[in-house]
Amino acid sequence: MNEAKTLPFEKKAIGKSPWRVDGIGLVTGTAKFTDDIFLKNMLHAKILGSPHAHARILEIDTTAAEKLPGVVIVLTYKNVPRVPHTTAGQGYPEPSPYDTFMFDTKVRFVGDRVACVAAETPEIAEQALKLINVKYEALPAVFDVREAMKEGAPIIHDEPDADGIHDRKHNIAAHYDVEIGNLANGLKEADFVFEEEFETQYAQHCALEPHVCIGYLDDNHRIVLRTATQVPWHARRIVAQCLQIPVNQIRVIKPRIGGGFGSKQEVLLEDLCALITVRTRRPVKIEYTRREEFIASRTRDPSIVKMAIGVKKDGTFTAIDQRVTSWTGGYGGHSLTLLTNVGSKTLPFYHCKNVRFWGDSVYTNLPVTGAYRGYGATQGAFAMEQVMDMIANKLGIDPIELRKKNHIQKGETNPVFAALGEGKEGHDNPIESCGLDECIDRAAAAIGWNTKHRRYQKRDPNAKIKRGIGMACLMQGSGIAGIDMASARIKMNEDGSFNLLMGATDLGTGSDTILAQIAAQVLGVTTDKMLTYSSDTDMTPFDKGAYASSTTYVSGGAVKKAAEACRDKILKVAAEMLKEDVANLRCENAKVVSKSGKEVPFPNIISRSLYGQNQFQIEGEASHVSYVSPPPFAAHFAEVEVDTETGQVRVVDYVAAVDCGVAINPKLAEGQVEGAVMNGLSYALCEEMVFDELGRMLNPSFFDYRLFTTVDAPKIKTILVETYEPSGPFGAKSIAEIGINGPLPAIANAIYDACGVRMKKAPFTPERVLAAILAGK
Amino acid sequence: MNEAKTLPFEKKAIGKSPWRVDGIGLVTGTAKFTDDIFLKNMLHAKILGSPHAHARILEIDTTAAEKLPGVVIVLTYKNVPRVPHTTAGQGYPEPSPYDTFMFDTKVRFVGDRVACVAAETPEIAEQALKLINVKYEALPAVFDVREAMKEGAPIIHDEPDADGIHDRKHNIAAHYDVEIGNLANGLKEADFVFEEEFETQYAQHCALEPHVCIGYLDDNHRIVLRTATQVPWHARRIVAQCLQIPVNQIRVIKPRIGGGFGSKQEVLLEDLCALITVRTRRPVKIEYTRREEFIASRTRDPSIVKMAIGVKKDGTFTAIDQRVTSWTGGYGGHSLTLLTNVGSKTLPFYHCKNVRFWGDSVYTNLPVTGAYRGYGATQGAFAMEQVMDMIANKLGIDPIELRKKNHIQKGETNPVFAALGEGKEGHDNPIESCGLDECIDRAAAAIGWNTKHRRYQKRDPNAKIKRGIGMACLMQGSGIAGIDMASARIKMNEDGSFNLLMGATDLGTGSDTILAQIAAQVLGVTTDKMLTYSSDTDMTPFDKGAYASSTTYVSGGAVKKAAEACRDKILKVAAEMLKEDVANLRCENAKVVSKSGKEVPFPNIISRSLYGQNQFQIEGEASHVSYVSPPPFAAHFAEVEVDTETGQVRVVDYVAAVDCGVAINPKLAEGQVEGAVMNGLSYALCEEMVFDELGRMLNPSFFDYRLFTTVDAPKIKTILVETYEPSGPFGAKSIAEIGINGPLPAIANAIYDACGVRMKKAPFTPERVLAAILAGK
Repeated sequence: MNEAKTLPFEKKAIGKSPWRVDGIGLVTGTAKFTDDIFLKNMLHAKILGSPHAHARILEIDTTAAEKLPGVVIVLTYKNVPRVPHTTAGQGYPEPSPYDTFMFDTKVRFVGDRVACVAAETPEIAEQALKLINVKYEALPAVFDVREAMKEGAPIIHDEPDADGIHDRKHNIAAHYDVEIGNLANGLKEADFVFEEEFETQYAQHCALEPHVCIGYLDDNHRIVLRTATQVPWHARRIVAQCLQIPVNQIRVIKPRIGGGFGSKQEVLLEDLCALITVRTRRPVKIEYTRREEFIASRTRDPSIVKMAIGVKKDGTFTAIDQRVTSWTGGYGGHSLTLLTNVGSKTLPFYHCKNVRFWGDSVYTNLPVTGAYRGYGATQGAFAMEQVMDMIANKLGIDPIELRKKNHIQKGETNPVFAALGEGKEGHDNPIESCGLDECIDRAAAAIGWNTKHRRYQKRDPNAKIKRGIGMACLMQGSGIAGIDMASARIKMNEDGSFNLLMGATDLGTGSDTILAQIAAQVLGVTTDKMLTYSSDTDMTPFDKGAYASSTTYVSGGAVKKAAEACRDKILKVAAEMLKEDVANLRCENAKVVSKSGKEVPFPNIISRSLYGQNQFQIEGEASHVSYVSPPPFAAHFAEVEVDTETGQVRVVDYVAAVDCGVAINPKLAEGQVEGAVMNGLSYALCEEMVFDELGRMLNPSFFDYRLFTTVDAPKIKTILVETYEPSGPFGAKSIAEIGINGPLPAIANAIYDACGVRMKKAPFTPERVLAAILAGK
Repeated sequence: MNEAKTLPFEKKAIGKSPWRVDGIGLVTGTAKFTDDIFLKNMLHAKILGSPHAHARILEIDTTAAEKLPGVVIVLTYKNVPRVPHTTAGQGYPEPSPYDTFMFDTKVRFVGDRVACVAAETPEIAEQALKLINVKYEALPAVFDVREAMKEGAPIIHDEPDADGIHDRKHNIAAHYDVEIGNLANGLKEADFVFEEEFETQYAQHCALEPHVCIGYLDDNHRIVLRTATQVPWHARRIVAQCLQIPVNQIRVIKPRIGGGFGSKQEVLLEDLCALITVRTRRPVKIEYTRREEFIASRTRDPSIVKMAIGVKKDGTFTAIDQRVTSWTGGYGGHSLTLLTNVGSKTLPFYHCKNVRFWGDSVYTNLPVTGAYRGYGATQGAFAMEQVMDMIANKLGIDPIELRKKNHIQKGETNPVFAALGEGKEGHDNPIESCGLDECIDRAAAAIGWNTKHRRYQKRDPNAKIKRGIGMACLMQGSGIAGIDMASARIKMNEDGSFNLLMGATDLGTGSDTILAQIAAQVLGVTTDKMLTYSSDTDMTPFDKGAYASSTTYVSGGAVKKAAEACRDKILKVAAEMLKEDVANLRCENAKVVSKSGKEVPFPNIISRSLYGQNQFQIEGEASHVSYVSPPPFAAHFAEVEVDTETGQVRVVDYVAAVDCGVAINPKLAEGQVEGAVMNGLSYALCEEMVFDELGRMLNPSFFDYRLFTTVDAPKIKTILVETYEPSGPFGAKSIAEIGINGPLPAIANAIYDACGVRMKKAPFTPERVLAAILAGK
């Protein structure tokens, strides 16, 4: 791992990979996930999902279900508040249409909520679902966005009080159109124009832990939700909205989480848990089955990305046009932001004066799409980075050189950021750190680019197994500029340890550890001296949640500030004890040390503060918001073998180099990259939700839904390229997502390098690759 | 209730008696006390207490106990760390001798710890205790402090590593001797010298909830103690000391508590729970039986108080000499501070230039004494206020006038405060509020003093039932000056509610409500907008605990400061929104209102702060320490009937007027006074722990230990006399203890008024009263 060349601080607690602060619990199995919690007298609830992709509910008869012994309550549209809302836990006011109700008189996809039964056992609840008699009026359904936008297509949202939908008659949930410069002129200036269309598929996050929530009343009859959520505060707000009660009646506590990847940015079970608990005065647990997780939670939005890029012969871009049409499924929570993110993570990446982005997010009668690692950038990179490859091939330039010539550099900015909603109040997201060239060079060297690219085909054009190599360059963000806010609180204990209370939500990523390292670095202690607690709407201060690669960067900024406030108080007490100026003091090895060599250990300082002269609790609290979203950058290289007889693609070697700013915890950073690459490989090569002609998913299980596991893993080499991001905590940027964006284009480009076919539709299954090879012959 | 005449603020949330913040839970039975918590796989532990008052343990054989099916661990001195410590949870470093070990090779009172068994059920644990074979060498025991101090008495603490014991050879745990002015000269100046000796008895707090603690390991294998404690931070510190682990390995959480009265200021079970949990990796519960609560927890320290007061004919005091000898029992946790508090709460009360206090706290082989409501002041007032009555009678002055002439007044101070350890760094505890004269006048009027005092005897000297009336004046403190420190934290939620996280420990008094009212008053909301949480060493900031009448005054001060810090941030955001100067803004009715009539509701402010322009968590945290301990004052009047044939004393009427500063919550203030008066009536008239000649308590049950219940209650009238204490939160002082100090002297004086006998030894049981009457004849 390369070090950022000159850092304005010395790495102590950061730059190391200590034990995870939740490691003992995870390793020994004592860590409590939501499903590990069993409460006395707890009900179990099950949800009746719609068998129809599109239907009106004419009547629901729950009498038989209610009579089944052990059934305690049945909820339908008839007995719950009808409040339009969104399930997407985003900033507030949300950029989402309020197109959702707890239960509606219409269902919009197979699996859409129809009723919910709470009973003494899960089995009774399940049995009761079968006793609910629903009379549906089936409506014509539409499953393809191209059809859905047409005049005369079934209108999916025709409810009177839907709000914020862009164009209901054409099923357009959200629309965005912006032009920077003059696209038409730019295209005219071009020597070549590349017009291509790419399409990605439906896929699910497949977190090992499905959505699960427990609700109960506390001692004072307030609702407590222990829930696997990425967004505790948004969940509290949305549940309060649904139930029409003040947020002070709800406490959301996040236990350990078994992965989110965006799916748990959605409030899917909490409203039901809260309402059942309030109505029955009993605890209740709801947990999605794997099938429900596939069809009724959230998925990646399939997108059609049309690119038109004008290029001069020398590889200068004169125009970039990106038109995106994406599936939002039955509801539109993330429709607008997913859409614009396709552009905002790809269009500002390359120098070009004339840029247009236009897009529509379109309702269909398929499962609801939402936040998923990469969040549009994955789809955008798939398109953009293949076109780059095409351009390089056409112009006879090395793809590396084309990118190096055009990509954004440190010290630059691009008005496209602001045009696509990145930044607030005119902040234009200046790039203050960019290690992309180093990423490219080191990854290229590691995989042997120069000796392999465009070489294999020449060797044996008739080989059955063909080798190829491809690459892609990537950019993501670190939080949502000007929107994401985080807070943290830290207090000192008598032994010189600290309680670090964070709003930040560790969803399994290890962010609690990373944030503890940041605090430990500020305070001059080892990370094990940080007792972490996250996140709980009663106990910890506000945090917008864990999404948009914001935790290390934004929440880390809050933790750093809180720790600094705490440190300043420590130094003040120590200054009195040592009779020194605060300016001469620093925290080091759990002591305060003066320039003149005097020192006092932390326990003496806090003892004096709590019990002695000073008598106050040494603590610090801070909030942090960033008006920029510094992109991590990455270069991915894939080497593949394509079996030209079967279409089977095997990834032989994969190198991912990422500019992560300063790596707070190198092992966790590498883990994020490896996990994201595996996730992307799986998405590129096999994952796909398949539906029948009635909109029913045909493969809603891990048996039928092909997913990469460790046995499928190729050799993956991760290279952390450290830069110093001045706006980040100790120079860090966030890299939770960027890694997933590489495999699609890098493998597609490698397939092209191997056998000359362009994979414009993912995933690259043997059938699809073989068809492309055959079509090309 | 009288209002403090002019307050520098308008009462809004304070001065009212809203629902208790924990009221719903308490009323509906959902509130969780420690014993309401059941954990899976939980062990139950029982303690083997010594049958001997004084013995050496020659051998313990636990083999049979360990073999009993269901027994998991047996602890004795052989397998636990031997760390000298104190169980008294006081300030740190403690003013207590380190004379205690988890288990020792010697036992010092009947019930002293010998072993502890943890088993699958309480029954098995109990059965296993009987299988522990202990070989004792019985030692001569001593039960009376007068005997214990003599040369040649059995030495109770002869262990080599005992620390801080004043004089082991004479069993003196603590000693104090201080003279202000010149006592001898003062006595010479006197026209009369009154020399009297008074003695009080052993009594137990009799909290409905006995000591109970649950230990378990959290997800990360840290020890969590959910325990009925008044001192979570001291408990954490002491357990860490006993187990020789850092405090960061321990979290102490205080559930609802069913009364403490000082007994739960002691760390009696937490060390065992922690050690069993660490050794077995299982949860464990230990709960005292009522018998153990009597003999093995803590009790009020019986005291012999010798008074010598020199008086001029006009009632001017020339000298006050107070000599105290108190029982500390087998261990000396509170020995020093209990001792000095006898003097510090009575000697500065009256003007006198020549004062001496000297005292010894003496080990015996009886149960350990400790903190108990009144904390020495009860014993001191019993002596002082009877002598006052004697002086008044001798000089022919109305007792009221004698007190009014001599008691400390607003604007004065008394060097005796500082001499007896009240105040730090030369703070001399100036009296800034004193409503005692009003207390006296209003209480006297309420009971009809002028028409009754010294009247009854004249009416019918030969009546069988004689009526009398007596009074006493009292003083306590509000926290320990310069020692007690408290902290609080408050954060604002999206609906304009607040989370108030307090280190303060509500032990059933309702202090959570009082502190919530203080915060609500600052923030201009109703008390129900405060979501309170107390107290938890991980989550809430430090607080020294609930003792010494400190919560309203000291913790209230911290809450007020934290709320003010929070308010200032609210006003800052509102100032931007309203385009007004902060100076023109105030919080009122959950809004910020400007002088010019503009206003903005709290939810808009916090929404802007969390999601809008400002983007920070509005919160405030503060610590507070007071260098004074402003005394609440009280005047108590009792009217009694004495049956001269049986010695039975019946309290006919009781009036307690208290200067409480500003009453934050009048109903809770009245409740404190009534509860304390009932407690004192019971102590004065019937409560007494009786021991046999081997030091075994003869009445360790509610059947045999006579305790006042509601059916015994006389008419009690409580008068809150409001003054404004400038150092208190909104002018408040603390009044948790003062009420218990009145019944002993007021009733004794009333008995004298009724039938001319002086009760110098408590309790005033029929036997003792009859004996005094017969002796006087």
